[in-house]
Amino acid sequence: MKEKIYPSGVIHRLSAYLRYLVQLDEVGRTTVSSREISDAAGVNSAEIRRDLSLFKVVGKRGVGYNIKSLITRFNEIIGAQQETRIALIGAGHLGTAIVNYDPLPKHGFVISTIFDNDPERIGQKVGNLVVKDIRELENVVKRHKIATAILAVSPEAAQEVTDLLVDAGVKVILNYTPVRIEVPSGVIVQTTDPVEKLLHTLYYLSRKGQGYSAAG
Amino acid sequence: MKEKIYPSGVIHRLSAYLRYLVQLDEVGRTTVSSREISDAAGVNSAEIRRDLSLFKVVGKRGVGYNIKSLITRFNEIIGAQQETRIALIGAGHLGTAIVNYDPLPKHGFVISTIFDNDPERIGQKVGNLVVKDIRELENVVKRHKIATAILAVSPEAAQEVTDLLVDAGVKVILNYTPVRIEVPSGVIVQTTDPVEKLLHTLYYLSRKGQGYSAAG
Repeated sequence: MKEKIYPSGVIHRLSAYLRYLVQLDEVGRTTVSSREISDAAGVNSAEIRRDLSLFKVVGKRGVGYNIKSLITRFNEIIGAQQETRIALIGAGHLGTAIVNYDPLPKHGFVISTIFDNDPERIGQKVGNLVVKDIRELENVVKRHKIATAILAVSPEAAQEVTDLLVDAGVKVILNYTPVRIEVPSGVIVQTTDPVEKLLHTLYYLSRKGQGYSAAG
Repeated sequence: MKEKIYPSGVIHRLSAYLRYLVQLDEVGRTTVSSREISDAAGVNSAEIRRDLSLFKVVGKRGVGYNIKSLITRFNEIIGAQQETRIALIGAGHLGTAIVNYDPLPKHGFVISTIFDNDPERIGQKVGNLVVKDIRELENVVKRHKIATAILAVSPEAAQEVTDLLVDAGVKVILNYTPVRIEVPSGVIVQTTDPVEKLLHTLYYLSRKGQGYSAAG
């Protein structure tokens, strides 16, 4: 079956649903209601039901949706592989925290190699990985056809390392630096910025009692 | 002037604009075009212009918008204070990375206290802060009327620490754990989850060449 092309907003919500379903599956749950997904993902139930029908997913009245089927179907839509190998750049505190972040492997994201330019870090172990010299990046990434990278370097190094990644063929960069990195078209950058999240909440704090919706 | 109440989507975009404007201001820029904001925030220019007119902000033809005025106006809308004090829970690798994250103080977010329950960490310095015993949390947070917290603890401790924070009067929790924490209504939780961001990009990777839009 050829998949439709879904708008970004739909895929954004689907990622949130999938995230939650895998958590439920882990604790041994087998079925879930649209109401539960709604509460977990912060999306209203009408929208969830619309999404699920768009994905041609059917639940059983009074029982709900089968969690494993939803996970399989959603992974199929997203195009998730069994395993997505990731190169992590930066073996400092943030890089170490990312290596130890359990949910990544549970979703098939495997940090398969880690690089740094600091001679004191190169050769050291972080988790089960030995930190490699950033000068090996191009070779290693090309040899293993790694398409995804996480950038956890200093702001000063962000653009330079990005250029190395792009030259080595990386197509997705999850950017943990505060720098707006420049990439050619065809490369996707996702940024993770606590400042934006905090700014967003200030609005609701300063208008306390006027309600807050996580949607949008 | 009494401010309107804006939808969550608008405030979400406004946070992204503000984030970018402060970066421009830092490097000495004085004016900006809606096109530049558009590129930086991944929002189309028509939407930016609509937002700016909603905020009653006016630019000069051929010159653009005054950056400092935009920052002042946007902070006013968001209700940002001179300084928002934050309690950070967890002095491990992630907590240490957060303490060292420069953009926070640049936007008025000051990590004013850090807690842990590990006897080996309590009393140690992280940045300029001495790690306090988690058992002091309630007293310290109440005394300093801290309303915002960042949760960087182990998944096992996430809910327990959340309950402590809520009891101490915290109203905003930025959750870095993979756990869906439960809070009473009136408390805002923002989560930061690399898995969701990565899942989202897989869709575009698997449909390479069909274009990607960050909006949505």
